[in-house]
This record gives sequence, C-alpha cells and structure tokens, in this order.
Amino acid sequence: MNTFGQLFRITTWGESHGGAVGVVVDGCPPQIDIDISAIQYELDRRRPGQSHLTTPRQEVDAVEILSGVFENKTLGTPISMLVWNKDARPSAYDHLKDIYRPSHADFTYQKKYGIRNWQGGGRASARETIGRVAAGAIAKQILRERSGTETLAYVKQIHALEAMVDTEVVTLQDIENSPVRCPDPIVSSKMAERVDQARRDQDSLGGIIESVTRNVPVGLGEPVFDKLKADLAKAMMSLPATMGFQIGSGFSGITQTGSEHNDAFYNESGRIRTRTNNSGGTQGGISNGEDIVFQVAFKPTATIGKPQQTVDMDGNEVTLEASGRHDPCVLVRAPAIVEAMAALVLTDHFLRHNAKC
Amino acid sequence: MNTFGQLFRITTWGESHGGAVGVVVDGCPPQIDIDISAIQYELDRRRPGQSHLTTPRQEVDAVEILSGVFENKTLGTPISMLVWNKDARPSAYDHLKDIYRPSHADFTYQKKYGIRNWQGGGRASARETIGRVAAGAIAKQILRERSGTETLAYVKQIHALEAMVDTEVVTLQDIENSPVRCPDPIVSSKMAERVDQARRDQDSLGGIIESVTRNVPVGLGEPVFDKLKADLAKAMMSLPATMGFQIGSGFSGITQTGSEHNDAFYNESGRIRTRTNNSGGTQGGISNGEDIVFQVAFKPTATIGKPQQTVDMDGNEVTLEASGRHDPCVLVRAPAIVEAMAALVLTDHFLRHNAKC
Amino acid sequence: MNTFGQLFRITTWGESHGGAVGVVVDGCPPQIDIDISAIQYELDRRRPGQSHLTTPRQEVDAVEILSGVFENKTLGTPISMLVWNKDARPSAYDHLKDIYRPSHADFTYQKKYGIRNWQGGGRASARETIGRVAAGAIAKQILRERSGTETLAYVKQIHALEAMVDTEVVTLQDIENSPVRCPDPIVSSKMAERVDQARRDQDSLGGIIESVTRNVPVGLGEPVFDKLKADLAKAMMSLPATMGFQIGSGFSGITQTGSEHNDAFYNESGRIRTRTNNSGGTQGGISNGEDIVFQVAFKPTATIGKPQQTVDMDGNEVTLEASGRHDPCVLVRAPAIVEAMAALVLTDHFLRHNAKC
Amino acid sequence: MNTFGQLFRITTWGESHGGAVGVVVDGCPPQIDIDISAIQYELDRRRPGQSHLTTPRQEVDAVEILSGVFENKTLGTPISMLVWNKDARPSAYDHLKDIYRPSHADFTYQKKYGIRNWQGGGRASARETIGRVAAGAIAKQILRERSGTETLAYVKQIHALEAMVDTEVVTLQDIENSPVRCPDPIVSSKMAERVDQARRDQDSLGGIIESVTRNVPVGLGEPVFDKLKADLAKAMMSLPATMGFQIGSGFSGITQTGSEHNDAFYNESGRIRTRTNNSGGTQGGISNGEDIVFQVAFKPTATIGKPQQTVDMDGNEVTLEASGRHDPCVLVRAPAIVEAMAALVLTDHFLRHNAKC
Repeated sequence: MNTFGQLFRITTWGESHGGAVGVVVDGCPPQIDIDISAIQYELDRRRPGQSHLTTPRQEVDAVEILSGVFENKTLGTPISMLVWNKDARPSAYDHLKDIYRPSHADFTYQKKYGIRNWQGGGRASARETIGRVAAGAIAKQILRERSGTETLAYVKQIHALEAMVDTEVVTLQDIENSPVRCPDPIVSSKMAERVDQARRDQDSLGGIIESVTRNVPVGLGEPVFDKLKADLAKAMMSLPATMGFQIGSGFSGITQTGSEHNDAFYNESGRIRTRTNNSGGTQGGISNGEDIVFQVAFKPTATIGKPQQTVDMDGNEVTLEASGRHDPCVLVRAPAIVEAMAALVLTDHFLRHNAKC
Repeated sequence: MNTFGQLFRITTWGESHGGAVGVVVDGCPPQIDIDISAIQYELDRRRPGQSHLTTPRQEVDAVEILSGVFENKTLGTPISMLVWNKDARPSAYDHLKDIYRPSHADFTYQKKYGIRNWQGGGRASARETIGRVAAGAIAKQILRERSGTETLAYVKQIHALEAMVDTEVVTLQDIENSPVRCPDPIVSSKMAERVDQARRDQDSLGGIIESVTRNVPVGLGEPVFDKLKADLAKAMMSLPATMGFQIGSGFSGITQTGSEHNDAFYNESGRIRTRTNNSGGTQGGISNGEDIVFQVAFKPTATIGKPQQTVDMDGNEVTLEASGRHDPCVLVRAPAIVEAMAALVLTDHFLRHNAKC
Repeated sequence: MNTFGQLFRITTWGESHGGAVGVVVDGCPPQIDIDISAIQYELDRRRPGQSHLTTPRQEVDAVEILSGVFENKTLGTPISMLVWNKDARPSAYDHLKDIYRPSHADFTYQKKYGIRNWQGGGRASARETIGRVAAGAIAKQILRERSGTETLAYVKQIHALEAMVDTEVVTLQDIENSPVRCPDPIVSSKMAERVDQARRDQDSLGGIIESVTRNVPVGLGEPVFDKLKADLAKAMMSLPATMGFQIGSGFSGITQTGSEHNDAFYNESGRIRTRTNNSGGTQGGISNGEDIVFQVAFKPTATIGKPQQTVDMDGNEVTLEASGRHDPCVLVRAPAIVEAMAALVLTDHFLRHNAKC
Repeated sequence: MNTFGQLFRITTWGESHGGAVGVVVDGCPPQIDIDISAIQYELDRRRPGQSHLTTPRQEVDAVEILSGVFENKTLGTPISMLVWNKDARPSAYDHLKDIYRPSHADFTYQKKYGIRNWQGGGRASARETIGRVAAGAIAKQILRERSGTETLAYVKQIHALEAMVDTEVVTLQDIENSPVRCPDPIVSSKMAERVDQARRDQDSLGGIIESVTRNVPVGLGEPVFDKLKADLAKAMMSLPATMGFQIGSGFSGITQTGSEHNDAFYNESGRIRTRTNNSGGTQGGISNGEDIVFQVAFKPTATIGKPQQTVDMDGNEVTLEASGRHDPCVLVRAPAIVEAMAALVLTDHFLRHNAKC
C-alpha cells in the first residue's frame, strides 16, 4: 500500500500530473516544533532544476501544511501536507500514451491495473518522493529534539568516479557546497563534467549514495523481521531507480574472515564501543551506538534522449524518440530523499522502542 | 515485531534454547495440499550437521503441524507448526553469561531489554529461521499450484571464490549435488576445501547467495513502498548475518549509462519481453514476467574458535575463548532460508494482487 | 492511529479549524467509475444546516479530488480528497480556550497530548467525519458495481420516540423525505417537534440509528478477531457520541431461549436461507447472505446552550455559558456517516475475501 | 486475520479438535514477572465443566509456555503458549459432518472456504478463546505492575433475571463465590435454578456480562478510529455469541437530554473528576480516569438438545437431533474471557500511549 512505518507512519499520494502530491504523517508526537521553512529547505534540495546539471523543470514546490500543527507545534494529530502540481502540460506527454518506455513502470502498471496515468509517469514519477521528503523533515526534527541524532547522505560515486569521504566528519555544508552533492571537492568537479557529458550525449548515469547517521541511541530496531538494517533496506529499495543496498562492510566484507571482520568491543571511558564498524552500526538488527553507515545503488536514469527500441500497447515494435529535456543524473537530488527515508525509519523505531521499555 | 507479510503472514517465536521454536502461518488460502514431508525436506536442507562441512550439532528438527490442516488440506485457518529444542545443554553456554561476543547480538539485546537468554543466542540464533523455512515450504506449494512459480537459491561466492551459474537453467538438483550448495562443480570443490581450511583455522567465511525465481506472473508488487524489490530486500536483510542486497544489475550496473542499461522491450510471439534483464524482473516495483534475480551478501559467521578481545557486562576488557565447535560457513545452509523468504514475499504479493484486481 | 481498514484503507486528517479536512483512500481497485457529484451528495447529507432542525452553520463542503482518478476512473493509486475549512472564526471559540466542556474531549486531549486545538473541538469535531463520508461514497460505488450491495441507515429512535420501519423494504427516498431522516412518517413529525422543543430548551437529544444492508455476498468476514460484526462494531463505536452497538436481536435477544432464538435454515429454491434473522446477517462472524441489520446508540449531543458546571485548566470550578447556536440532535446527519462506515467495512472484507479464495 | 492488537499483539491458532490450541503474544515488555499458575487460574475459570451448571466436558487445559520467558521473566521476545486437545473423539461428531447447525458457523465456513473441520466447530469453537485468556493473564500482570489497573467481569443478567451490582466495590471474590459468577447472591441463586431448568429443557440461555476497570490512567485510546470504546467494542464483538456492546449509559442513555446526560467536571483535591459517569470512563475515545464500565450481550447458546429444523450440505431439509450433552449457559464461563479481552485492549493502548508521549 502507500503507507510506510508502524508508529511514525506516512501515507503518500498523488500522481506527477493532476491536482497535487502530498503526504499524511500520522503518529507524530505532540508539541514538536514545526518550522515550515526547514521543510521547504529539504524540498528545495530534492527539487529538479537546482543547477544546470539537473533537469531544467522550474517548478517551485511550495509546501502547505493543512492540519496537525497549531501555533507552530504539532498537536499529535495527523499532519497533512501538499504541493500543487503546476507544470501540468498533458500534451507534452501525448506521444507516450501508447508506448512502454524501456525500464520504466509503464508496462507493469498497465498490466497490473489495466489503466495508468501516462502523463509524466503518474505514481511512479519522482514527484512521489515530495511527500517522503516533507515527512522526513519532520522526522529529522524529532530526532534532533529527542536524541540529537543527525542523518546525512551524499553522492559517493557517479559512473566510475568514486569519492573519498570520511563518514565521521562530513557535514551538510560539505555536501551542499558541491553542485553534485559530493563532499570530495576534487572528485566532485570530475563528476560535474561527467554529468555534463552525459547530458550532451542524451544519455544518463547512475551511482551510489552513501549515508551516515551519528549519535544514534543504542537499542533501536527489533530482533527478527523489523531489524533496523531490514527496514532501512526496504526504505531505500522502495525508492525509484534503486538497485542495491548494503550496510557496513556490505558486499566487500565477504572477502574477510570472521576474525578479521568481527568488531571487537572495548570500554571507552565507561561507554562500550567497537574498535571497527564493519557492522555499520547495528548488531542483531539493533543499533549499537556506532554510526549507521549504508550505501544505495541507483541505476542510470531510465529517461534518456537517445532513440530506443520498444513496443507499444498493441505489441508493435517501435522506436521511442524522447522529447528532449531529461535529467542525466538523478543522484544529485537523491541525498535529500535518502536522508528523509533514513530519518523516517529511525523515528519509527525510536517511538517503538519508547513503547516497550 | 515478529510478524512478516500482510496477507500471507507468518509469526515466528522461540529461542534457541528453551521449549521449542515455531511459526504461525496466517492467511493461507484453503484447500491447498499439504505434504509434511516437503516441509521436512526444507527443514533438513536448513539444518546444521548435514555434512562434515557444517556444524556437528546433530538435532533432527522434526516438524509438527498443530492446526490449520485437515485431511492433508489447509482449512484457511492459522497453521501452527513447531520443532522442539532437543539439544538444550544450558551449561555449555555458562561462560557466555556475562560476556558480549563480538559482532553478535548480546550487547544490543542486553541494552535494549535489560535481559537476554544468553543460552545459544536466544532469539538471535539461526534456529529462529526454522519457522521461516517451514512457512516458506507452504508458500512454495501455493506458488507451484497457483502459477507454476519456482524459487531457487544457491551459493554464488564464498570468500574470494566466485561461481559461474546460468540463472536460466540451474536446477535444485544441481544445487543439492554440491556439498556447499554451489551448482558450479569446479568452484564447488574449491569452496569445500576453503571451508575446511577455515574450520582448521578456527575461523569463518562469508559469501553471496544468489536467487532466481522463474515463471513469475506479471503484476506482483505495489507501486510505492511495497515494491517487490523493497519487500525482497527487507526479507533478506531480516536474516541474521546479511550485509547487502542487490537485484538485477545491482551495484555493478552503475558503471553503465542509461542507454546501455535500459532493458529494451520486444514482442516474443505475443508476449512482451525484455531483451536484457538488468532490471532483475521488476520495473516500477512490479514484476514484469522476467526472472527475478537477486543476490544477498552474508558476512563471515561471527562465532569463531580463535580468541577475541571483548568486554563483559561490567565493562571489563576480557579475552573470549570460544568453546570449540563452530560452523565455519553458514552459507551452505542459507539457500533453503533465502528461498523460503523469497517464496513468502511472492505469495503475499500474489494474494494482494488477487484482492484488488 | 488515523487509518481504518486493511485492504480498503482510509486515513483521515484535519481539525475543525485550520486549513482543511480530508482523507486518503488507499487500496481502491482500478477502473472504478468515480462520479464526484455522488460523493458531494453524501457530503451534503452529512452537512449541518440542511434544515431549521439542524445547526445553522452554513458552510458548503465542496469536495476536491486531488489524485487517484484519471478520466473519471480510479487508477488503483491513492485517492486524496479534501474539503477546505471556510467558517474559521477562531475568536468565536476564545472563551473555550481554558475550559473543559463536560462530556467533550477537551480534558482527555489536554491530558494525553499536553496541547489541543481548542477552536471548535479540533480533531474531535464532527467535521472529521467528512473524510469518512467521502471515502464511503467510493466504497458504496464499489459495492454497487461488484455485488449490487446497498447499505441504508436512518433514524430509528429520538429520545423516547421510536419508529416502526420494515428493514426489508425501506428506501433511500423514504429516508430523505423526512426532515429528521426517519422513514416512519408519523413518528417523523413527532420527532421534528421534539427536536424543535430541545432547541428552544437550549438542550439536546440522543437516539438510535438503524442500518440495513441488502444483497450481501455470503462469506464476508473473518472467523476470529475480524468478524464482520466486530469490525462493524468498531466502525460505529469509532464515531463521536456513540454509546452502543447491537446486531440482529442484540440486547433484546437475551430473553429468548436458544430454541426460540436459533435461525432455522431452509432451502429456498436452491438458495440456503434462514427463516428468522436473529443473527442479523452474520454467523461465526461471516455474512450468511441475509440482510445485515444493526443499531447504534448516540448519546444526546454534548454541546448545549444551558449553563453547566465544569472546571478550567487550572482546576477552578466555573460555569460554562455556551455561545448560543447549537445542534440539538446530530442524529439527523448521522445516517450518511453510518452508511459510509458500513460500506467501508464491507468493501474491505469484500477485497479480503477476494484475496484468499 | 487471527491477530489482535497493534503493539501488544496476540495471534491465536488451533481448532477445537486436532493437535492443540494456542497463542503467540508479541510485543510484551521485557522483565515482566510471569507466574504460570496465574495463567492457569484464568484458564480454569474459562474451562467448561467447573460445576454441574456447565458442560460436563472434563478436560484439564494445562498451559505450556514454549518461549519468551527466561527464569520467570519475560524476555521481550514472543511468548508462545499452547494447550493440547485431549478430548478428541472425532466419531462423536460424525453426525454433524454434512449438516449445518442453526445459528452456528457451519454454513458460512463451508461457503467461505469450501472446506471445514466439522469436528466440534473447528476454529469457531469456544476453545479458540483459550489463547485469548492465556494472553490476557499476561496483560493483566502488566497492567497490575505498571499502573495498578484491574479489570473485572461478571454475569449481570441471565434471561430475564438481572442482578444489582455496585461497580465501584465488586471484587473477584464476590464473583467467584457464585456458581454462576453473579456477585448478587440473591439473584445468583435464581439464576442457578433457571440454568438448571434450561438444562432439563434441553434448551439454552443468554444474558449480559458487565465489566468494570478501575484505576485507569488518563489518556489511553486514540482520537479517531482507535478510540478506546471502539477497540473494546471490537474485542467483545469478536467473541463467539456476542450480539451487542454498550459503554456507560449505552442504549438507555438516549432517553436523557444533554443537560441530564453530560458528566459535570469537578475538582476533587486536585484531581479532575466527573460527578456522574454516563461516559463510562472515556471521552473523545480516550480514558478520563473514571471507571471503564461496559456491558456485552450474549445470545442463548446455539447448541441445544431439542430437535431443530435445518438443511444438510446437499440442501435437503432435515431434523437435527443433538447428541445429548450441552452447555445451557456459556455466560458462566464468559467473565474470564471478557476480562482477558479488556486487559488486552488496555495493555495495547498503554504501550501505544507510552510510545508517543
């Protein structure tokens, strides 16, 4: 369904074209300070058209809060937020009405539902993430107020260009200073060139987003199915274009032996810590107080300018000539989304932990 | 919580020591044929002690069905299954009572709950997966009856040894013929040697399990949060020792451009298919009828024989000398578990798809 | 939380004052015809100020559909609907800021959340039911299209005035012809007088709503916790001011013996029916194809014009003088709400039944 | 499904015949003292055959705890409990194989699932409540430890005989002293005679169970769908044979006006209380600290000795001659079940309240 979370629960709605997109946040504790400009800031980070590197679509996604907040504080009731769709030029999509775009959701939606909103991707559009980001901004505020927890995400790799980033010290400022949101200044420049090249080629690029969460309380997560790593994996793999998730040592940890890979405990002035963090901040599915570090693989964007072979709804093989503008690398907008999803998962588990103990 | 799935829903229970471990399967359609020997077969695949390569623990995990089945058919009511714990020698664990084993759940459980069953890992033990495998055997039967869908999983990589496997033709027989459940005979032999070496070293190994599901109906999965890839990721990352999940081209797809990576549609005698399967069988979160192919990274087993530095519950730094027997590579038992989880996810989405359309 | 239903799931949001109230309907099957005027019709039935008998508040609650519908058909994606709050005169509520109105939610909200929107009752306002009614209108359409099922509700009793209604033949027309929505014309007139009397007395009245659902498929409902009668009871008791729920013979059936009360089966031209319907249309929690008949008790409205003793937020005992206008009998608006909730429950179970069998 | 509760969650399983019946309790806080004899005490209260007034079935329902408890304390992991079915004489039910018993679940189960366990009612049997009562005993313990909250239930009315009970002072001892669990000694004697009469008549009786919960924290319950009264209603209407639920003034409150019915607040030495309790302990769906008082109507037991008209599975009209033994009044066993359900609802809301605030 369109709901995520158990106690801190969001329900997103809206197609990319049509009235609006939005979210209902349920389960938010009362008396949390709400700063609408902080929500708008996150939406602006997510928005296309922030620089020449990203798609030129120039909507301003201005969020409205319709309920759940009274005199700038949460009431404990559902918070409804929406952003109106302003760029609705349905005719721009007429040529897509009968065509299945490769590696898009057109074909599967049509087969599942027998109907689809073919204007701009409908529910599969990246605009769906607006609701997630708005809700995530509230989750971030809760984590900040209650436990001083902060989640960051940034571009770790684009195509073959991989950045060096120290997860322990990287800041939001470092990330936002880069036009591609890569906090390694040297690799950042190369990435920007590579993205421009892809734009000129009418092609697209994928890459890796890395996320670090610091100051995590010990004890978040549930032992079996709702392990913190499992809920983070689901959150990330529920994003469009994601192809993989790994935490801590991930896929590269398998070439170590157990004696190399185990994180030895030690006593740091009364706080029990681990000397290494191959576990990525969780053990047995539960946060151990070390930084939570994970990576998410995004495939190259499916929308490209180059002609492609595909079929139409009648099964005829046809060539798709895209309409021109495209976003050669969605990664640049992804950090805000990844941070939002991580904050949602952590807040949910924060409340779940409160309930029990 | 300890429940997984929305319409086909399992609740597992049980510590590794104490009375029993089990599962309640809720939402199973009525009139499904139940063959208890098929369930037992899967449990035997999961069981330790199947060969000299795995842990010598020699329990026979005989499953009992306590409800929900009448004259070998499901009633549509909850199916309760259990396996008694027979190997309960609590004293074997006495030395672990006050110690946090590195990269185990001891520390996080203790901090979260203030109490833990320190005998054999309690709820974090691999015995918890018995319930998953028993439930998965029923899910497999539903998929077989209703849509002819088959899920397989096998060892793709151990440490640095990677197998070559053709996902389109590999069979259960190929997998079970190998003592390490790797269907590539040449690499399988090397793997067996490598595992034996790890045993002698009192050390452990990790690796990759790959899974393929064939004959998947088009339309399984939900567009946003409950994408098929997201639920598979959660299912896999909810298993002990998993560190990563990737579907289709996964992390390696990021060095392709969009024009290289997109899966072109074509018309194969009236059935719309894709020429490549970089998407791994889902698009927009929904199955497209191609094989579902994913991989799961397992870290090297945390339990090893070598001495390790750690702390006890009072914060004293101590050396942990393990008790001798250990399983140097849990991967060998993992295929049954990965298949079970994949079958559970697919069955749940199969029923969810039925509901709506 | 603010979500109701499992497969056909609604999430309502909104306070009585502030931006808007609304609902997200998730799980709606695709390709259902949506007629916005049918939704508006139900909202108009729910709206105060329909006659001199009800509160004079004159908002027009015009519904907007923001997502999930394309070319007048559902997409299978979430349907977001909202109604703007227009009558926001916060100053009209200033005198209630610090006072706990008797038998209202002011005290409990304040204690639970430490904050409340004291303007017009906030989330406890009857305006919250707007979202339920809008969603219920869609549920009614699904039931009509898929199984020809129709739910009606009407005023059965106000204060001591009880109507005679034949559940097998009563029509929507019969109900809407009465200014108090009581299809017994003689008692309806007396009720209208009694309500006018209460208005003049600055007092309020309660009563009973009765509902009948005809043409119900056999098999809706789940055996144990999610019995149809249990979900109907929850739906009705989740409405403001409800104090009781009974199905079939209800509380009056207890003075019969089993041999008098049991519903004998017989064969009516191949269809198995019961000669009596003391069971009210469900047996073992599952619909048996007979009409579903239940009643809901509503207490007299808590808001009255008469002075009342109460306390303020500092614990001082004070006299509350209400501000004048009040609705002496909310029952008149309740049929649309009761019908909506019944339709939501039935639609949810309709989809759940589809999933399994 | 077969799960009840959101954070304190039970899953019951088991038919009346076949292996066993049981429950998995998930979400129980850690470190709660578990006294198995307290659980057994509640099961004994629920058990048939406690006196000559109830059915002579003489099973001893001995509970076993299989997981989740370690050294007499909860671990925070799922608690699995079961009771073996010992009275399995399938042949005693052979005559029911093809017959639909009036006002039983035989017909609806057969139509819903196409299969049913016709031995003793299968899942619709009162034995299903064993799991609820065992789980409820744990919930009672949590409420006792955490907030000193106590729930009682007793027989308020059998057939036309209504007891006088002071909800503020009635004790468990008062209830258990009566062979029919009615704490009014004079009416209790008449009830016992009336039940004996029904037994001799091969007939059955219904009645009302009343429940009072004292020492309830303020703030339990959620504003909209998950109102405390709504969840209590669902809990009670999910029990076999229940036909109605009312809280506080219930159906009888409707003949009062608002000014008569409203519960005036006053300040009792700093604690805000209400002078009357027509609300039954909740306002706006949330507990206000007054006693929670509700009533549940149970129909006369469907199983009787008298011959009845019905149909068989082929649609033939037949006469059902029951097999002799029957329980003329299940009410006597119902208090333990009603208390258990109330305790489960309150515990769930207790944990939910913790989570948020």
